Amino acid sequence: MLKARVTVTLKNGVLDPQGKAIGGALATLGFEGVGQVRQGKVFDIVLSTSDRAAAESELKAMCERLLANTVIENYSVAII
Amino acid sequence: MLKARVTVTLKNGVLDPQGKAIGGALATLGFEGVGQVRQGKVFDIVLSTSDRAAAESELKAMCERLLANTVIENYSVAII
Repeated sequence: MLKARVTVTLKNGVLDPQGKAIGGALATLGFEGVGQVRQGKVFDIVLSTSDRAAAESELKAMCERLLANTVIENYSVAII
Repeated sequence: MLKARVTVTLKNGVLDPQGKAIGGALATLGFEGVGQVRQGKVFDIVLSTSDRAAAESELKAMCERLLANTVIENYSVAII
């Protein structure tokens, strides 16, 4: 059994109104020196296999097909 | 200038219907051996300070006040 963490973030240059709103809210709350804020998603996935290489390639396929929109998002896969 | 990544995940025991739906979709797509899937959020934040310790405590304060709902969510802070 393996645990993996997939992180999906917006590509550079893609507008992120949600991140911008969060940055504005942090400034309103009095946090100073906050620059750009970008929001992404994280998926914690439990896999029944124990083959790390196979798991990694399967996770990448999951990202390509479902978890990430590769037109506007990057993904990274880490096995914990 | 520092870059930080804040990861917010649901606490154990908190229902995650979105994660369950993603797990179901992965199974429907033919990915075998997928166990529990939990979805979380990630925030990439640029800070103007270069004091790592100060940045870390400020980021924790941001999590407590805005980024995480500490009743149902855990957070972790990493300076990249």
